[in-house]
Amino acid sequence: MAVERRRFLKGAALGGAAGVAAAASTFPKPAIAQERRDWRMVTSWPPGLPGVGTGAERLAANITSMSEGRITVTVYGGGELVPALGVFDAVSDGTAQLGHDASYYHISKSEGTAFFTAFPWGFTAGEISAWVRYGGGQELWDELYEPFNLQGFLAGNTGTQMFGWFRNEINSLDDLQGLKFRTPGNQAKILTKLGATVVLLPGGEIFPALQSGTIDGAEWIGPYNDLSFGLYQVCPYYYSPGYHEPGAALQMTVNKSEYEALPQDLKDIVRIAAQEAHEDMLSEYSARSGPALRTLVQEHGVQLRLLSTEILDATKTAAEEILQELRDGDDEMTRRIVDGYGAFLNDISPWTRTGEQAYLNSRYNPFSCITNRSI
Amino acid sequence: MAVERRRFLKGAALGGAAGVAAAASTFPKPAIAQERRDWRMVTSWPPGLPGVGTGAERLAANITSMSEGRITVTVYGGGELVPALGVFDAVSDGTAQLGHDASYYHISKSEGTAFFTAFPWGFTAGEISAWVRYGGGQELWDELYEPFNLQGFLAGNTGTQMFGWFRNEINSLDDLQGLKFRTPGNQAKILTKLGATVVLLPGGEIFPALQSGTIDGAEWIGPYNDLSFGLYQVCPYYYSPGYHEPGAALQMTVNKSEYEALPQDLKDIVRIAAQEAHEDMLSEYSARSGPALRTLVQEHGVQLRLLSTEILDATKTAAEEILQELRDGDDEMTRRIVDGYGAFLNDISPWTRTGEQAYLNSRYNPFSCITNRSI
Repeated sequence: MAVERRRFLKGAALGGAAGVAAAASTFPKPAIAQERRDWRMVTSWPPGLPGVGTGAERLAANITSMSEGRITVTVYGGGELVPALGVFDAVSDGTAQLGHDASYYHISKSEGTAFFTAFPWGFTAGEISAWVRYGGGQELWDELYEPFNLQGFLAGNTGTQMFGWFRNEINSLDDLQGLKFRTPGNQAKILTKLGATVVLLPGGEIFPALQSGTIDGAEWIGPYNDLSFGLYQVCPYYYSPGYHEPGAALQMTVNKSEYEALPQDLKDIVRIAAQEAHEDMLSEYSARSGPALRTLVQEHGVQLRLLSTEILDATKTAAEEILQELRDGDDEMTRRIVDGYGAFLNDISPWTRTGEQAYLNSRYNPFSCITNRSI
Repeated sequence: MAVERRRFLKGAALGGAAGVAAAASTFPKPAIAQERRDWRMVTSWPPGLPGVGTGAERLAANITSMSEGRITVTVYGGGELVPALGVFDAVSDGTAQLGHDASYYHISKSEGTAFFTAFPWGFTAGEISAWVRYGGGQELWDELYEPFNLQGFLAGNTGTQMFGWFRNEINSLDDLQGLKFRTPGNQAKILTKLGATVVLLPGGEIFPALQSGTIDGAEWIGPYNDLSFGLYQVCPYYYSPGYHEPGAALQMTVNKSEYEALPQDLKDIVRIAAQEAHEDMLSEYSARSGPALRTLVQEHGVQLRLLSTEILDATKTAAEEILQELRDGDDEMTRRIVDGYGAFLNDISPWTRTGEQAYLNSRYNPFSCITNRSI
């Protein structure tokens, strides 16, 4: 299975190096053949996980294909070469040349890393791209990663996530007191402030923990991935909005020494492949999440709920406290990231409201007269 | 100016072929040098137009750079090589190998072309990407363009547009009667049904026509481009939402014979460069539109307005009529595109509502305690 999965290079039926050589032989280039690099991409994802995992594999295949094998990338799932949460260190120290994971797994290195994935009540998927590419985000990110010998690129986005799954309705802050809930990062800090007992579990352990009663609820990603995890079998209540990850970005990291040593065309291929992967993965999540949500509601009886104003307001206050703590802390780099992120959100949110949000709030689907399958 | 603009290849200070040869000389590859293709990209855009125009130039530079000049692309603005609206024909007949414009300029070829740019009350920017990449849209598009010897790729998006600029407030359908308004495509059909007198003008003629009183109002794109056109100098009222183009996609067309003749790595470079350009341009519009909107309101006294329910409801009815007319027409291909588009919108809109829209409607910006510059 793992071997099959790595044979993704088009035309590389013989697998690995032999396949690349066969493909390249149709195009004479003696000098270039000597330049071939075999690169490893380590990821945090269970092998073959739809969306984030398959997106990373597609990205690796595109780098291999566009470079005609001058960079031939082999992908490893979490735990196959290094631990799922060891991607950052492995790329930093050169164990692998490429990594695919989420920057906010590494807040132990710097709290600033969180802002390149998602922050509660922060950027949507479109907004984080705008910040990184046209709002100074990439420059701050480069500065943050410089001491780690890493070059980071946006390389995927899940879109808005869901708040999570619950056995019972949660209507007020009282319902959160002592609730054992699985969630990571800054959202864990927020729910702890609100009285929940937060537990960190890898994705694969969520369902068993719910079944055994070790936890009362959990958030994972959104309808596309949550459906396949079967969380609805224990928790019938599914809450929106996922204010804690309104557009969670994934990152591709490149060992910076290796990246800097590339000729310009290969640098551009690596960078542009990552940006294409970013858009492609978001498109996949957008396309799959609607039908998955419909399946959850119509076939599995899931109860969709919106969080109450009481709970939402409390999370906003908690998010403000966390931001203030980060700004008051010792880490100058994190403070500059918080300020840059916040200033850009203020710069662009008037347009988000006036443009797409105003449109969505006015929308009615005239095509529904043709195909009416409303949820 | 035009010469300067075309010297976009990094390191190609000598310009054109000499620059490419200089860059390539550091990397010995005698066989490949023989494969060099000089390609022309014709566009509909005034040279240097921010967003759509500069995005097309960036895309061309990326193809050149990733291919190390094996495809060296020269960009032409509208009218420089072929007329602004002649891009489709020029790429179809091989006058140029590449084109960058909007598919809906070509509804005279097929009404189906409109759906790959935008349709009133249809897809947002994220939704059209999801449809084309993961919802069967690309397959319908390929079939539509096959007889024209064209390969189409999404290659840019302006995001949600604005309804337009007006001298006076428009509160009811009465205010639209006889109003002379500039807008193209299906929106022209809708406003004609509602009683307006619709005029088609190229972008550069909009401002003079407003000044002379030839027209009473106009829509162009959104705050980023509209600000530079100075439309606010005549029309103080700026209306949202741009339901007619909720996420207007631009296309890159490739002469299909030329595309099919490329080796696989160059095919992938061309395709992936287009997809990256799509995301990059949308990011630029997202980043620039908020500050532009603030400038319009705070420095130029522009009055932001939301369309009334009376007007919005009438446009929805008109959009339904147009869809029904397209389905009742003789063009089987267009009917299949309408049905595919509509079915996919119904498939994914539950998630748009439950995910991002629910988030945006709950959002409050906790960063505003740090930097409060609300519009």
